[in-house]
Amino acid sequence: MKITEFFEQSIGQWRSQRSGHHLAFAHFEEVLSTIDIEALNVEEPEVLEICKLYDIDPASITHPFRMTWEGESDWDDKPLSGSTVLVPIPDPENPSRGKLLRDKGYAETIPAVSKYHLSDDGIFTLLTEYDHAAAEERIWFANPNLRFRVAMIKTSDGKGVTTASFSSEIRSLSSPTS
Amino acid sequence: MKITEFFEQSIGQWRSQRSGHHLAFAHFEEVLSTIDIEALNVEEPEVLEICKLYDIDPASITHPFRMTWEGESDWDDKPLSGSTVLVPIPDPENPSRGKLLRDKGYAETIPAVSKYHLSDDGIFTLLTEYDHAAAEERIWFANPNLRFRVAMIKTSDGKGVTTASFSSEIRSLSSPTS
Repeated sequence: MKITEFFEQSIGQWRSQRSGHHLAFAHFEEVLSTIDIEALNVEEPEVLEICKLYDIDPASITHPFRMTWEGESDWDDKPLSGSTVLVPIPDPENPSRGKLLRDKGYAETIPAVSKYHLSDDGIFTLLTEYDHAAAEERIWFANPNLRFRVAMIKTSDGKGVTTASFSSEIRSLSSPTS
Repeated sequence: MKITEFFEQSIGQWRSQRSGHHLAFAHFEEVLSTIDIEALNVEEPEVLEICKLYDIDPASITHPFRMTWEGESDWDDKPLSGSTVLVPIPDPENPSRGKLLRDKGYAETIPAVSKYHLSDDGIFTLLTEYDHAAAEERIWFANPNLRFRVAMIKTSDGKGVTTASFSSEIRSLSSPTS
């Protein structure tokens, strides 16, 4: 699988079943959510704004997208929802590696630059460093309509892992009427 | 990581937290278990018996081990427990690939031959075909004391995925008194 296929196959609406593992206490969290991944054009204002924020030439980016999620956890009564715009910048010397810019990070609200690479096995790994923590995500397709995602949050020295989570994401083949 | 390190780092006692996802119904299963992975010598009778069963020269195998597990599911009152002996046979031309023999398969009770390979990212993938299903497992280390394992059960044509599971396995650093 090429990285361009990986980005293209990710576009769509996904029904996500996520299990969180809080490792120290062996606690389980269950989350059901809907995730929309929508391709954006390079010219869209939100994309250009991110390029400007990070001082990046819009000609160097590829496959920008918006990710929107809405879900419910068995641990928290509040609905989980949010939206972020993500902009991949491939490494000019090796297109299966690159940086991923976003308008907001998951764990903290400052913009975070992530590094990604696609392994020879088709596993997309995303590394994000925050001020006090680091996140590692691995995403792969079991088939074009089923994605798996494993995420873990590490302490910033990279040694301790506090939580891990696993998502099974099934493509919603029926599009909602709008 | 080399495949020999992968096998060696797996030896020990692990406290496992596993989430099963039954994909069609978005059902969650929670399992807590203890897994013991014990190195065996090539000369041990159980290892030689497996070599004989599959007509394999014991000189061609590496790192045989016994895996024993005992756990509890929130879905089933019966305790889950079992034990199996596993025997890797590296591909002579590429030691990061090979076959894994075992005395019993997970999903059915006939002996199953699995294929494995280690990716450039240190992810060990194990593929097992049964009569009516196929299993794919991916195992990797977050650090020497934390392993993740994602398993999925597919229909034998490889297209449908019925269940997926995620395990966080933490090494038990205190050994039990014996």
